[in-house]
Amino acid sequence: MPELRKDPVTGRWVIIATDRARRPSDFTRHTVVQKGGFCPFCPGNESKTPPEILAYRNGQSERDKPGWSVRVVPNKFPALGIEGNLDRRADGMYDRMNGIGAHEVIIETPNHRQTFADMPEKSIEDVLWAFRDRIIDLKRDRRFKYILIFKNHGEPAGATLEHPHCQLIALPIVPRQVLDELEGASRYYELKERCIFCDIVHQESSGEEPRLVAQNRGFVTVSPYAPRFPFETCILPVNHESSFENASSADVQNLAQMIKLVIGKMDAVLERPAYNMVLHTAPLSAQESTDYYHWHIELIPKLTKVAGFEWGTGFYINPTSPEEAARYLREAVVETPELASTR
Amino acid sequence: MPELRKDPVTGRWVIIATDRARRPSDFTRHTVVQKGGFCPFCPGNESKTPPEILAYRNGQSERDKPGWSVRVVPNKFPALGIEGNLDRRADGMYDRMNGIGAHEVIIETPNHRQTFADMPEKSIEDVLWAFRDRIIDLKRDRRFKYILIFKNHGEPAGATLEHPHCQLIALPIVPRQVLDELEGASRYYELKERCIFCDIVHQESSGEEPRLVAQNRGFVTVSPYAPRFPFETCILPVNHESSFENASSADVQNLAQMIKLVIGKMDAVLERPAYNMVLHTAPLSAQESTDYYHWHIELIPKLTKVAGFEWGTGFYINPTSPEEAARYLREAVVETPELASTR
Repeated sequence: MPELRKDPVTGRWVIIATDRARRPSDFTRHTVVQKGGFCPFCPGNESKTPPEILAYRNGQSERDKPGWSVRVVPNKFPALGIEGNLDRRADGMYDRMNGIGAHEVIIETPNHRQTFADMPEKSIEDVLWAFRDRIIDLKRDRRFKYILIFKNHGEPAGATLEHPHCQLIALPIVPRQVLDELEGASRYYELKERCIFCDIVHQESSGEEPRLVAQNRGFVTVSPYAPRFPFETCILPVNHESSFENASSADVQNLAQMIKLVIGKMDAVLERPAYNMVLHTAPLSAQESTDYYHWHIELIPKLTKVAGFEWGTGFYINPTSPEEAARYLREAVVETPELASTR
Repeated sequence: MPELRKDPVTGRWVIIATDRARRPSDFTRHTVVQKGGFCPFCPGNESKTPPEILAYRNGQSERDKPGWSVRVVPNKFPALGIEGNLDRRADGMYDRMNGIGAHEVIIETPNHRQTFADMPEKSIEDVLWAFRDRIIDLKRDRRFKYILIFKNHGEPAGATLEHPHCQLIALPIVPRQVLDELEGASRYYELKERCIFCDIVHQESSGEEPRLVAQNRGFVTVSPYAPRFPFETCILPVNHESSFENASSADVQNLAQMIKLVIGKMDAVLERPAYNMVLHTAPLSAQESTDYYHWHIELIPKLTKVAGFEWGTGFYINPTSPEEAARYLREAVVETPELASTR
């Protein structure tokens, strides 16, 4: 059973995934992502994953067989276990609980080579609907406080399988970064009685707009004012909404369009970089955050190795200004999917 | 002039080092650390660095000439500028100030190939004295709130030059991670009227000691209870002290011994990994933190590529338990310097 442990000084929880325990030699050997070999996420190999939790399929196809467009399965090597209770308790002066949670994989497309930049918008929409369906289902489990959805694209960003997929982790705690955002947004709301993210959307999409990357009917994409990484971007819904799962179907459509566009721009400017994409949405039970929190997606291309002392300090040096990054991305012409897929 | 910008939601400051601004193509080209070529930190090449700020030299040798054992110079490509005032001001709804600070390089030894594991303890002591001398000097500048000392060892950990060196950054703000520690330690002190780090030292070095890595007259090295990374360790002074620069000369000696030992153990268990080392000490002006803060050194070997979604969440999955990591490190036999240096 994995364990959740709290750092006594900073209050940060970490998962100690003891089931995955490794010996030192596992770190010193080089592990290379298998390319072109067997893929457990490709159609026909459904039996190589745990049984599916959800799939969007054509009428005739059977469960755990080909015929799906999006497929959600439990992670075969989960960082958290779904069975059991939290059993929060002290460990000397420390705090721990069982590593209870869900760890799922959202297989975005049957096509091994497709990316968000070359997928039809409709397929990205389906991936977003799968996010929503899984959030709504997992929300019923009162042990969970937060659902984290993220994507590691490319080996440098931490992907271990090439086939396009996102991951979902349901957690009995709220991750640190989201807590920091909630606290900051709450303080701002107390002071101004406005949502800080709404203010950001307004400031960044009116006037001179030096950090605006793209804009459509439902969303803006900006380079944040104080980005930690070069070419980091943030996709925000224009209308206030704290929880992703409440997005309207028009907004799911707009978001699919925006994701395709922004990943396409990033691919054009940075030559198809590895990247991480993280959905920040309100905690599951936090009714009080509906006024001041505003869900959004953070997109971080993996470009720098600067990742040195940042771990130990929480302090970042970014060699590219967001205004410059936004200008490159804004001006990037996105190739047509047909061209892009033949590169 | 670099700029310091504050993220409006989380309150995290970042340096936008515009002087180092790079075009997208700079990220897509591979940069490789130059090995075996010209080294600006080797003796005889003193004129290739900015003039020295501090050096420990033998009696006859001249400034910016060979004959030194430790040499401190300004970083040739500083992330912060030393001249000017902070000029804190609003930028629309945001906050910024000038990137005022010091960015120095501490060249640890004239010997290009030496590491903390093979250096004589006396040489490590000298490096620690240089830390102290620089902190005491920079402390006089009232613009600075924090002095960050860290080491990136090896290319995967962010080092761009091979010659052994540490870096020092004097900042007009306190880095996020240190702020989190100060807040947590202050809350604990309010509740218990004890230093939380003293309690950790006590708990980890008495009884069963499953997370104890090493111990000498002045220091303990432990695997933290909730480590973010495999084989992360923390070196803590046994006696309470908030600021590194107040360490006694006996403790400087004990710390040099401990650093040599722990790096040696890490080298033995993990086959000379790249690593980051960060000194966490109290903010410069914070007299109030003397009771509850306790300086320490964090040591993080760079082993995993898992660094994916962690950026976007502040949430970590660690595949190795600290008890297991501590056992490997505790049991590691450190080779003699002579053997180690001929590997």
